Amino acid sequence: MDSQSYNFQYFTVRFPSDHQYVAHVEINRPEKMNAFVEAMWHEMSQIFTQLSSDPSVRSIVLSGAGERAFTTGLDVKAASQGLTPDAPNDPARKAVHLRRYIGVFQDCISAVERCEKPVIVAMHGFALGLAVDLSTAADVRLCSRDVQFSVKEADLGFAADIGTLSRLPKVVGHFGWVKEVALTARTFGAEEALRVGFVNNVYGSRQDTVSAALKMAALMASKSPLAMQSTKEILNYSRDHTVEEGLRYTAVWNSAALQSKDVSAAMLSGLQKRTPTFEKL
Amino acid sequence: MDSQSYNFQYFTVRFPSDHQYVAHVEINRPEKMNAFVEAMWHEMSQIFTQLSSDPSVRSIVLSGAGERAFTTGLDVKAASQGLTPDAPNDPARKAVHLRRYIGVFQDCISAVERCEKPVIVAMHGFALGLAVDLSTAADVRLCSRDVQFSVKEADLGFAADIGTLSRLPKVVGHFGWVKEVALTARTFGAEEALRVGFVNNVYGSRQDTVSAALKMAALMASKSPLAMQSTKEILNYSRDHTVEEGLRYTAVWNSAALQSKDVSAAMLSGLQKRTPTFEKL
Amino acid sequence: MDSQSYNFQYFTVRFPSDHQYVAHVEINRPEKMNAFVEAMWHEMSQIFTQLSSDPSVRSIVLSGAGERAFTTGLDVKAASQGLTPDAPNDPARKAVHLRRYIGVFQDCISAVERCEKPVIVAMHGFALGLAVDLSTAADVRLCSRDVQFSVKEADLGFAADIGTLSRLPKVVGHFGWVKEVALTARTFGAEEALRVGFVNNVYGSRQDTVSAALKMAALMASKSPLAMQSTKEILNYSRDHTVEEGLRYTAVWNSAALQSKDVSAAMLSGLQKRTPTFEKL
Amino acid sequence: MDSQSYNFQYFTVRFPSDHQYVAHVEINRPEKMNAFVEAMWHEMSQIFTQLSSDPSVRSIVLSGAGERAFTTGLDVKAASQGLTPDAPNDPARKAVHLRRYIGVFQDCISAVERCEKPVIVAMHGFALGLAVDLSTAADVRLCSRDVQFSVKEADLGFAADIGTLSRLPKVVGHFGWVKEVALTARTFGAEEALRVGFVNNVYGSRQDTVSAALKMAALMASKSPLAMQSTKEILNYSRDHTVEEGLRYTAVWNSAALQSKDVSAAMLSGLQKRTPTFEKL
Amino acid sequence: MDSQSYNFQYFTVRFPSDHQYVAHVEINRPEKMNAFVEAMWHEMSQIFTQLSSDPSVRSIVLSGAGERAFTTGLDVKAASQGLTPDAPNDPARKAVHLRRYIGVFQDCISAVERCEKPVIVAMHGFALGLAVDLSTAADVRLCSRDVQFSVKEADLGFAADIGTLSRLPKVVGHFGWVKEVALTARTFGAEEALRVGFVNNVYGSRQDTVSAALKMAALMASKSPLAMQSTKEILNYSRDHTVEEGLRYTAVWNSAALQSKDVSAAMLSGLQKRTPTFEKL
Amino acid sequence: MDSQSYNFQYFTVRFPSDHQYVAHVEINRPEKMNAFVEAMWHEMSQIFTQLSSDPSVRSIVLSGAGERAFTTGLDVKAASQGLTPDAPNDPARKAVHLRRYIGVFQDCISAVERCEKPVIVAMHGFALGLAVDLSTAADVRLCSRDVQFSVKEADLGFAADIGTLSRLPKVVGHFGWVKEVALTARTFGAEEALRVGFVNNVYGSRQDTVSAALKMAALMASKSPLAMQSTKEILNYSRDHTVEEGLRYTAVWNSAALQSKDVSAAMLSGLQKRTPTFEKL
Repeated sequence: MDSQSYNFQYFTVRFPSDHQYVAHVEINRPEKMNAFVEAMWHEMSQIFTQLSSDPSVRSIVLSGAGERAFTTGLDVKAASQGLTPDAPNDPARKAVHLRRYIGVFQDCISAVERCEKPVIVAMHGFALGLAVDLSTAADVRLCSRDVQFSVKEADLGFAADIGTLSRLPKVVGHFGWVKEVALTARTFGAEEALRVGFVNNVYGSRQDTVSAALKMAALMASKSPLAMQSTKEILNYSRDHTVEEGLRYTAVWNSAALQSKDVSAAMLSGLQKRTPTFEKL
Repeated sequence: MDSQSYNFQYFTVRFPSDHQYVAHVEINRPEKMNAFVEAMWHEMSQIFTQLSSDPSVRSIVLSGAGERAFTTGLDVKAASQGLTPDAPNDPARKAVHLRRYIGVFQDCISAVERCEKPVIVAMHGFALGLAVDLSTAADVRLCSRDVQFSVKEADLGFAADIGTLSRLPKVVGHFGWVKEVALTARTFGAEEALRVGFVNNVYGSRQDTVSAALKMAALMASKSPLAMQSTKEILNYSRDHTVEEGLRYTAVWNSAALQSKDVSAAMLSGLQKRTPTFEKL
Repeated sequence: MDSQSYNFQYFTVRFPSDHQYVAHVEINRPEKMNAFVEAMWHEMSQIFTQLSSDPSVRSIVLSGAGERAFTTGLDVKAASQGLTPDAPNDPARKAVHLRRYIGVFQDCISAVERCEKPVIVAMHGFALGLAVDLSTAADVRLCSRDVQFSVKEADLGFAADIGTLSRLPKVVGHFGWVKEVALTARTFGAEEALRVGFVNNVYGSRQDTVSAALKMAALMASKSPLAMQSTKEILNYSRDHTVEEGLRYTAVWNSAALQSKDVSAAMLSGLQKRTPTFEKL
Repeated sequence: MDSQSYNFQYFTVRFPSDHQYVAHVEINRPEKMNAFVEAMWHEMSQIFTQLSSDPSVRSIVLSGAGERAFTTGLDVKAASQGLTPDAPNDPARKAVHLRRYIGVFQDCISAVERCEKPVIVAMHGFALGLAVDLSTAADVRLCSRDVQFSVKEADLGFAADIGTLSRLPKVVGHFGWVKEVALTARTFGAEEALRVGFVNNVYGSRQDTVSAALKMAALMASKSPLAMQSTKEILNYSRDHTVEEGLRYTAVWNSAALQSKDVSAAMLSGLQKRTPTFEKL
Repeated sequence: MDSQSYNFQYFTVRFPSDHQYVAHVEINRPEKMNAFVEAMWHEMSQIFTQLSSDPSVRSIVLSGAGERAFTTGLDVKAASQGLTPDAPNDPARKAVHLRRYIGVFQDCISAVERCEKPVIVAMHGFALGLAVDLSTAADVRLCSRDVQFSVKEADLGFAADIGTLSRLPKVVGHFGWVKEVALTARTFGAEEALRVGFVNNVYGSRQDTVSAALKMAALMASKSPLAMQSTKEILNYSRDHTVEEGLRYTAVWNSAALQSKDVSAAMLSGLQKRTPTFEKL
Repeated sequence: MDSQSYNFQYFTVRFPSDHQYVAHVEINRPEKMNAFVEAMWHEMSQIFTQLSSDPSVRSIVLSGAGERAFTTGLDVKAASQGLTPDAPNDPARKAVHLRRYIGVFQDCISAVERCEKPVIVAMHGFALGLAVDLSTAADVRLCSRDVQFSVKEADLGFAADIGTLSRLPKVVGHFGWVKEVALTARTFGAEEALRVGFVNNVYGSRQDTVSAALKMAALMASKSPLAMQSTKEILNYSRDHTVEEGLRYTAVWNSAALQSKDVSAAMLSGLQKRTPTFEKL
């Protein structure tokens, strides 16, 4: 595999030579502060679906190009032309078209969550609206000191519908804070994001954030890819189920996963203080 | 609409002239530290049900009158006369009566959660037992520095049954802390409440807390009332469902909500840096 | 009841004379840093099942003997001999045997959660792998300053399958942090554990931690045992259900529990500023 | 209690002297084939809520007055004036008003299901639209040979939204048949209803059906009212939950219910071949 | 729209001129008794996804070409070459590949259920294995007298995993029968299928069955397409949720759907005994 | 394995020589019409737990000794001495003891459902109360013409709490019938049981029923034991989950199960028209 199979208009996908098995996805429309037009979420979905089963990739970093913004969210100018211009002029028929439209959009964002590999998102500058939807679908959120977050949608007259409202209450335990930022649409910065647990860590600059993300991704990529995939899957499953259901699902899952050579390889390496290597998946 | 349609014995409902669309509900039995007798939770339910569909109201603040207490909870003297004195003298029949009684009581408290508008609760002084049940049914919790919280019920020989035990684990992510305060019934103050995420912010005095609550309520009231209602509903729904169910419900919900004139009004105002106005709901 | 009925090979069970109704369970294999061999989780299950219905016990502390470790988790040397050596040599049949094996192991750990009495776990030194599984099944987690936690399993080539991945997301609200420590298997200390809400408090030494745990347990043991049991049960139920389901279950539960003499005893004691005593359960 | 406390405009409530503890509710607008106007579902809700806690009532029969129809459903002429005429002229705001309106309507029908006593519905003649919604909220459905059922709503251009689509798949196991009658809106008769299990039995005439319903109700009313209430509640709960959840809820429920004197009374009567009598509830 | 946009290798899609808005999909590999090779389920998914949003289609019939079989299921010869031949030779890695493979296969079958229009399946001759998986994803099942059904998978050494075991218990209420036919893999015929409610009706021949299916489809296609789509969606949702959740979802859904012109059009037509026409969707 | 390891007081376990891999469990207290005393459900649980992992057993038949009864249910004389005689004399404490007692009893019955092998129950004569609880935990129900069923508990003054009310609505799709027999406690016979789908088939005599059960069990025992176990597990899981959850669980389960040699063995045997043999599990 090489970066040539990942040729996209709005995204750059790199495979940093000093971080084996790590893919680095960059939103690349800096002249518009990485604002999303419709083609972009389709591209993004395609990228993460492809990475999900690419045996050369074991973990992923997602960041934004340019110094000013991770992304300012939906390109409002494009959106203000109407979301489903061809829908029939009947409120119920229009609702059908809107529901399909939202469903497709949600599904593109969910590709990040469905991706079998850990995804670390590194944010900086403006990270508004869609930025929050997107980042809650990732596994770990990091940011730079200058970041400005906002659950912007309420200011646009509607409820965030492509992920934030469904995922933020599962990502941050402080539900009153979730309510506040979603209902006021106010901006919040790195320090607050760290305090409430929206991000795992804060770094000095965009570059530092990306570096830290790559380093964390490399650490994950050094482990058994089966262990990484299993852990992500079971944590996401458990988030949405009772403890009892979680345990049952885990037992079935691991009844296959524990048969891997990786387990004895890892255990032996541990006892012998060697670094194990793991076969591709 | 004016305050005359909100005439209650134990509660005052005001519509502060400097905060358009904001209702301020005050528990008003300060001589008993706002302790609740049965008539009070029925009144409270009536108030929040009425506010829920009142088109002149877009957000609500709930606070307690008097300097000493938000509320000390259930009026124990009244309660100690027996909860269901007329129940037959058969443990199973008594259980039926108690279950109905608890059901009605729970339902009154849940009126705060069911209310379609955001509810910000401003607490001070003693905030015991029922105070916690009540506040977890609200959307945002604020408090003054002098507040003293306690999940008091364990000290009365029973498990809190009108909301705290069902809602606190969804409001505060630190489950060990929830267990501790519920199992020890110990008092905790403003700083601790802030640290674990039970409250969003702490203020110097009762008055400062109420002012901050009104200001936050006014900010919410300045947004599209559809966006506010949708956001509250979807967040509460998502708290209790899988991410996938949350997304599906959101798509159906927004297939109607996105057809509002508020969306283009808000987007245009945003682009034109004007303050939008929104029709009544 | 006395400690003679609690005679186990790998665990010591004490009933500290200065803490009425408190049981202190100690993992006692310090020469192996309390690493778990299979017999140990069966013993542990037996102990907590017995304590669960022992009327002389109202709360429980769990800690580890020796200065170096609460427990380093699974005894890897024992485990590396193969988990189900007698399983037929067919991946599907082996999966059946592994699933049964994991199920039994999970069930032993869940005995701590199923135990009707509050369980406070006091951790120090190394607290790796199984230590985290085990502690998330308890109600309150305390630790000493020198503790070193790790969700170790990823380093052994598999996903933690006896509780951590199902329970940690319900115990700590900061989901990104849960993902990070589970996917990196990195060590974290007392301060970080406190900050994210994995533990309730940090103490200077192993002994201080155990003392604090016993004191908290004694406070719980001084309350109505019905109130303690009900509170633990309803909180665990609510964690896994919608608010509405939680309220319904609570109403049914309390329709029996509120008929206890403990309620009037506790209320009267409160009004008369006396310490109530409660009958055995 | 006597029938005077059950004085309603559109419904007759009788207490047949030859069937102790049985209430007979009759839809009484035969000149319009018992078609429902809005006031009627509010009355119906009030009746079943009142019966639910009336200690003189242990089981209920619901039927329709006049020979031609149990009910032809919603009064279409009234409905065609518009459901929420005062709603603002914005599709999203109209949706809010419609959602509230449907919610209230659903809640009125659900009063039949929520009623703590068994409800047997006896149907004849036309039983269209709302008739099916209503009858699926009851416990047992009986009908006369001349009945004509139809899930009529599809013919009115919308999906049945006050109960049929949510309850019919839980009441009839033949899901393909449920789909067919809901998607074609075709009429089906007594024999087909019996074959697929929509009704329990078919009788020769309206009067025979009502008599059979009263007889069955009397049999239920002769049992312990606690056993009846518990059985209805647990069956409805179990319908909507996993077997494991059903068992857990049942155990908690019966931990109070089994303490009734009714149990020993019933057991003794059984051994002594006597008819037991049970205290009011 | 015309049949040219539905050009597939293994399926024929027709738009019968005498049945407006009806699509007829035929499995067309009669020389192999319509056995499925991998390309076929991908084609089928594509067809039903396309039909789902095709405004010229309002209902669909699915049948099999040739006199001998609806389909004999998976092409065993093809399957016996191995399902995921390229998977790494490690049981855990192989499990990952198999899980992806099953997931894709399931998703193709689920396209029938996800399709927004009613799907009627007309079966004849051999209808084995995949035939049952497929038909349970449809809305209505019809068959000819000569049909031979079998949940064949158990005879191939594994559990049916692309739908039968998950959907059959929701389609047929007689769970003991479901268990029997799944655990014995025995053949059952038209009469038995009718008796237990697996099919809605039995016809004399393949042609009669297809004709009846087309006629039923035409009846559905004559109704408001919004009503059809809403009814299918809400029934499928309700099958999988509690009654309470079903009602809530329905209210939100219909808050948009009831705003359609179809409702007044249908009601007026009803009052005026005219046949209504409905705009495309 | 032989019958000597299955030596019980109240049950006989046989391994009929003409039915390889089949175990036949007989309730053996005919002089008391197989009425259950407490020791019996503990024995029964032990038997089915042991059979569950016994590699020589692939399917199980359960029947009752003596001509008069499968079982008349709970031994009322024994039960009337009080269920938890040692419970403290406080309604809430008594509730705790009762809840534990019911929990243990339920768990014993659930051992039949948890058993990994298919269980066919063959009933005759009186099959009252516990008989129904027990049989709904089995996979297939058969009966003789003379059987008399009754959900007897309502006549004893309480709601059936060890399985019937939780499982019967999942076993029989006709919910109105389930309500009727549970609320009237009336007797029903073989024909009615067959018509509503409570039993799969009716036979002339006790012996014929047992023979048919053994024959069906032998057919199941001739299949791949992995396929049998997987099918039972996935059907029980799917009964209690959404279709989507069912499919997900199935994919994970089969990702291990499909790796068995049984699959190719069965496929080859099918193509070659040979009878396959399968390794022990």
